[in-house]
Amino acid sequence: MLIQPPKGFRDFLPEKSLQRNFLIEKLKTLFERFGFDPLETPTLEYAEVLLGKYGEEADKLIYIFEDRGGRKLGLRYDQTVPLARVVSQYQNLPKPFKRYQIQSVFRAENPQKGRFREFIQADIDIVGEESLLAEAEIIAVSLKIFKELGFKKTKIFINDRKNFENLDKKVISAIDKLEKVGEEKVIEEIVKIKAISCDEAKAILNQIKNKKPNETILKLFSLLKTYDLKEEEDFAFKPTLARGLDYYTGIIFEAVDDNYKGGSLGGGGRYDNLIGIFLENSIPACGFAFGFDRLLEAGNELNLFPKKSTSTKVLVTIFSKDFIEKSIKVATVLREKNINTELFLNPEKKLDKQLKYADKKGIPYVLILGEEEVKKNVVKLKDLKTGKQQEVALEQLIKILQL
Amino acid sequence: MLIQPPKGFRDFLPEKSLQRNFLIEKLKTLFERFGFDPLETPTLEYAEVLLGKYGEEADKLIYIFEDRGGRKLGLRYDQTVPLARVVSQYQNLPKPFKRYQIQSVFRAENPQKGRFREFIQADIDIVGEESLLAEAEIIAVSLKIFKELGFKKTKIFINDRKNFENLDKKVISAIDKLEKVGEEKVIEEIVKIKAISCDEAKAILNQIKNKKPNETILKLFSLLKTYDLKEEEDFAFKPTLARGLDYYTGIIFEAVDDNYKGGSLGGGGRYDNLIGIFLENSIPACGFAFGFDRLLEAGNELNLFPKKSTSTKVLVTIFSKDFIEKSIKVATVLREKNINTELFLNPEKKLDKQLKYADKKGIPYVLILGEEEVKKNVVKLKDLKTGKQQEVALEQLIKILQL
Repeated sequence: MLIQPPKGFRDFLPEKSLQRNFLIEKLKTLFERFGFDPLETPTLEYAEVLLGKYGEEADKLIYIFEDRGGRKLGLRYDQTVPLARVVSQYQNLPKPFKRYQIQSVFRAENPQKGRFREFIQADIDIVGEESLLAEAEIIAVSLKIFKELGFKKTKIFINDRKNFENLDKKVISAIDKLEKVGEEKVIEEIVKIKAISCDEAKAILNQIKNKKPNETILKLFSLLKTYDLKEEEDFAFKPTLARGLDYYTGIIFEAVDDNYKGGSLGGGGRYDNLIGIFLENSIPACGFAFGFDRLLEAGNELNLFPKKSTSTKVLVTIFSKDFIEKSIKVATVLREKNINTELFLNPEKKLDKQLKYADKKGIPYVLILGEEEVKKNVVKLKDLKTGKQQEVALEQLIKILQL
Repeated sequence: MLIQPPKGFRDFLPEKSLQRNFLIEKLKTLFERFGFDPLETPTLEYAEVLLGKYGEEADKLIYIFEDRGGRKLGLRYDQTVPLARVVSQYQNLPKPFKRYQIQSVFRAENPQKGRFREFIQADIDIVGEESLLAEAEIIAVSLKIFKELGFKKTKIFINDRKNFENLDKKVISAIDKLEKVGEEKVIEEIVKIKAISCDEAKAILNQIKNKKPNETILKLFSLLKTYDLKEEEDFAFKPTLARGLDYYTGIIFEAVDDNYKGGSLGGGGRYDNLIGIFLENSIPACGFAFGFDRLLEAGNELNLFPKKSTSTKVLVTIFSKDFIEKSIKVATVLREKNINTELFLNPEKKLDKQLKYADKKGIPYVLILGEEEVKKNVVKLKDLKTGKQQEVALEQLIKILQL
């Protein structure tokens, strides 16, 4: 019997789940701060909605199956095609439609380090707006999020896909790998792709490397400065930035933090040809996708996120059967004061077992209410980190625990 | 081309999604207040983990499919069997393990009013504790949640499955329907099931109806009173309450609100034989499941939940191209003050179009920053509900919008 999740799928026990909730909450708050509203789409879509939208290679990675009624269904592969479906289905939505979406997506690929078959995407998109202010807002909210999360060296690199206009798709994706594999390998690959000499390949690469920001990029930079964002510190031009996805049509960007070497924390850009696919229209759009797992990993590496195995602040022990009522009453008061309080549930267990439980669970405080304490009208509060214990009155207790 | 979600699946546009987020947030906060921590399990499980755990009828409702590697996978059917799997897999978890879980579950059944193929369950469970204090805590947190959400007449009905000990399963589920179908129908059904006379069937039903609370129930009631909960007002004995699910082994309960006629808002009980299935042990457990969609429906019917089509408080318009910078700067200040602010993105659009957009989207305030206002160092704030507009200084603006 396999008592584990399928390969590539994960359980999140309290410590991890609390962190995920922390990050999701931050993202939601800041997305809404910038005027984005939430959208949720179902986990399953009709297969025909998903297939053929991401390219042949991707189609193989979509979980597709037939339900009992013979309908072909697929698991959410990303949040962009569902967004396109929603925009087609509800044509009355006020435009620009600014939505955020934070849901699981599924990829039937071979799991490897940092790659899973189910993972969260956190996307913001502005649909129906061609003005460059859309890019500016997307970049501004993204930088705000990194700052609020505590990232100190996150910069957004910016380029325009139009800078690659006359280049082969394969050459573009070779150049995109410049940082990962180094200049030599990129030149080698261009040589192979174009069947040209090394010098000719070098020339192509150098031509890209020497590009100057075009007018669109300069306009965008000037907008960003109005948001109190600083060139070089917050954002920078990067002529070799290509972003893998075929569907970008204009400005593209990618967030990287100097203190984290595990890769980009997210990216996005303008893609004016995808959202209209179900309408056979062109609908301008611009978006940013945060790498949710990457953000968690980076935030943990840099000690930016709380690491708690429980959100409980205090365990109210039960001294003996005769003190059950007293303990319930104190727990009830603490909860009324918005203090996360666990009541020990088994009055048969000895006090030291109860303390061990709190310690194992990672609850910072333990409260003891025995005969003496009740007589004196106090409680004994033990700080499990320092081992210190003190007798305090109820009011004082509340103050300590509310800190 | 089907540009819609599959039958039985739903999109949640901003208004609904905001409400769902509101409810989820409340549930999480209060679950944690009572010492429950979050758990997440994957959307997919190995089919063998799911099949045979819910009974034959249920097995037909589980979405099962084969992935490309030939492994049989199933979509999450509920959160209890995954909990049992987690408890078996991570045997080191401190016990009692008190977790909450708020995720989508999937049922391949025919959709009908109020029934969907994907819906959220919000569960709390205490695993590894046989003390009656577990039931008391579960009932206390549930009642607290209904009260905090604004439900005024929610009562939890309580019974003990042991009260049905010598009865046929089919008879139990006939009696469970008493409120839905009426006494006559129940008697008719018992007549059929047992092949007995009407009087004999009536006698069986009356025997149940006349049961008095047993010792366990009385003990539980005395505990609940310690939580400042009132018998009859907050909780009550109901001898005919049976709860459909086979797996309950002791105390069972169900929440009903007198002001809402659409059915129970949730229910649960003790089930000591399910969590250990993967270990072939018996592990005591007790839980409560909130009907998430039902809660939303009831809360809306009773006007308890916010109804907003956007979380945005104010739209900062752009008077003309020359005022883009001014508008960005004001938007940035408002956002720094934690005010949800949308910036209009297209300076080419006339002001009345921008106001119409705000109105259609449901944004309560619009801010206008033209030549005159800049000269006077004020902004014009328009309340779209009342139509009133006023000139205010930035500090005053922040105060109004922070309300």
